[in-house]
Amino acid sequence: MSIRIGILGYGNLGRGVECAIRQNPDMELAAVFTRRNPEDVTILTKSAAVCSVANAADWKDKIDVMILCGGSATDLPVQTPEYASIFNVVDSFDTHAKIPEHFANVDKAAKEGGNVGIISVGWDPGMFSLNRMYANAILPEGKDYTFWGRGVSQGHSDAIRRIDGVKDGKQYTIPVETALEAVRNGEDPELTTREKHTRECFVVLEEGADASKIEAEIKNMPNYFADYDTTVHFISEEELKRDHSSIPHGGFVLRSGKTGWENENKHLIEYSLKLDSNPEFTSSVIVSYARAAYRLAKEGQTGCKTVFDIAPAYLSEKTGEELRKELL
Amino acid sequence: MSIRIGILGYGNLGRGVECAIRQNPDMELAAVFTRRNPEDVTILTKSAAVCSVANAADWKDKIDVMILCGGSATDLPVQTPEYASIFNVVDSFDTHAKIPEHFANVDKAAKEGGNVGIISVGWDPGMFSLNRMYANAILPEGKDYTFWGRGVSQGHSDAIRRIDGVKDGKQYTIPVETALEAVRNGEDPELTTREKHTRECFVVLEEGADASKIEAEIKNMPNYFADYDTTVHFISEEELKRDHSSIPHGGFVLRSGKTGWENENKHLIEYSLKLDSNPEFTSSVIVSYARAAYRLAKEGQTGCKTVFDIAPAYLSEKTGEELRKELL
Repeated sequence: MSIRIGILGYGNLGRGVECAIRQNPDMELAAVFTRRNPEDVTILTKSAAVCSVANAADWKDKIDVMILCGGSATDLPVQTPEYASIFNVVDSFDTHAKIPEHFANVDKAAKEGGNVGIISVGWDPGMFSLNRMYANAILPEGKDYTFWGRGVSQGHSDAIRRIDGVKDGKQYTIPVETALEAVRNGEDPELTTREKHTRECFVVLEEGADASKIEAEIKNMPNYFADYDTTVHFISEEELKRDHSSIPHGGFVLRSGKTGWENENKHLIEYSLKLDSNPEFTSSVIVSYARAAYRLAKEGQTGCKTVFDIAPAYLSEKTGEELRKELL
Repeated sequence: MSIRIGILGYGNLGRGVECAIRQNPDMELAAVFTRRNPEDVTILTKSAAVCSVANAADWKDKIDVMILCGGSATDLPVQTPEYASIFNVVDSFDTHAKIPEHFANVDKAAKEGGNVGIISVGWDPGMFSLNRMYANAILPEGKDYTFWGRGVSQGHSDAIRRIDGVKDGKQYTIPVETALEAVRNGEDPELTTREKHTRECFVVLEEGADASKIEAEIKNMPNYFADYDTTVHFISEEELKRDHSSIPHGGFVLRSGKTGWENENKHLIEYSLKLDSNPEFTSSVIVSYARAAYRLAKEGQTGCKTVFDIAPAYLSEKTGEELRKELL
């Protein structure tokens, strides 16, 4: 029997999960839950239901894992504990600083409900975290580096769009190639924020808006842009649509470390991602962890887990024998 | 209390393990076991004993994990099951085709002894396997590539040294840069053996040996060299010692995959290693899995495990709270 998946929230991430389920023959999409009027939501999977989020609890026995596709700012802090008391759940909570608190809330709810809740799944947090952790365990004496991009930062794009006179905009985070090379060359550089990434903005102005004023406002925006070398391009709405509609992203996790009795030998571990679609890749990671949630729950485990707590084999459709034979 | 480690076999790998233990404050080296006369073996760790392998069983209650540092051809197939019946063990068995058989033998012995045996730990098999597995689970529709090098292949160096007239030699495996680039560009190339790697040999001749005959013999050696573009350099013993004494290695694991309802988006996952010392890096991986073996055994688990079966957090000295706070 297939693993029956529910999707709660049908934006970019929810659609990505729907597509990923299609690539995993041991899974099926049971239903999509939406805050909108279900009749207004058209999904790709003919066999799945579209339901109001208000009725989600009715699906308790018809869904093995509920994937929560809301945002980290306001949705997930509430939704993940709430639904972990009813379902096995997976989320992509990505507010790094609030993970300990979120973990505690989900752990309590999941244990009370007898369910498994896997939080902060995706690529960062997620696969990048895993690679930081493995590399730190292997090379205790070393230095970590994470670079993001080239890719679209939703948070920075939103910040641009909130400026008066801006009609639309996209922001790309770009790693500084010379900094990456210095790390790869084993120079163990100390890098400032400005030395690691640049930011490139494509902005569509409202009619009559003052371009140079807006450019200055972007470049001086604290937290978002002030600490970076930022480039601003003003383009037409057509150009934005034509050239900047996709949501690529990626990045690099590196650890340089030393071994030997006198730390005489250097090593570099590098993990990188180059993604055409950030939400679809994130969804693909989430779906493999939904399989793990299902299996852990079958074993009688309960409570909150992260990628650190889950043996890799749980993610794969293959058996232990197949994995050892084909991939070890 | 520290995790007490034993090392069985004191070659490059055993010495690497000794160095790695020193970087992990929660571990201590209890004893090194050797087939040589213990009095002839000098180790770096003043506080540890050097004993005959014949007396290893006497250390049953004084060692938490025995790390087996023998070779995969003849040592480990016998030693790992033998010692798994007495100790928790970790090995670096790397004969890929024989892993299923080795797993079965170690599993039986470890279960009978009530111990944990972790096999095939290192970077390939090991970290490369993990990355292949994670990437396959995340991107079910895709293509795998593994490239090795630039680095010294012990097996190929040994093959050269067995040729009549060869006094000494080292062989480097080198990935073909254009093949790597084609994979990175998302071209999903079909690559022959010759297109993936080249082989470079540095050979010291015996006096009076026929260089051109030996060069031909190397280049035409089946399995080892015949399927590759091979370069042979004849150098002096001094040059070999001066320029080719270290044991660097590394490589690349890539998976290119597609997502989206119509597979319209491409992704590339790449993991790479650049290692000054192959045995020391392998040892560092092994030592982190020795921590896992200790913890799993404490939980009452028994039997054979591979890197696929072990949750990442078991490798780290940090607590779950610390990992979530610092590395997630």
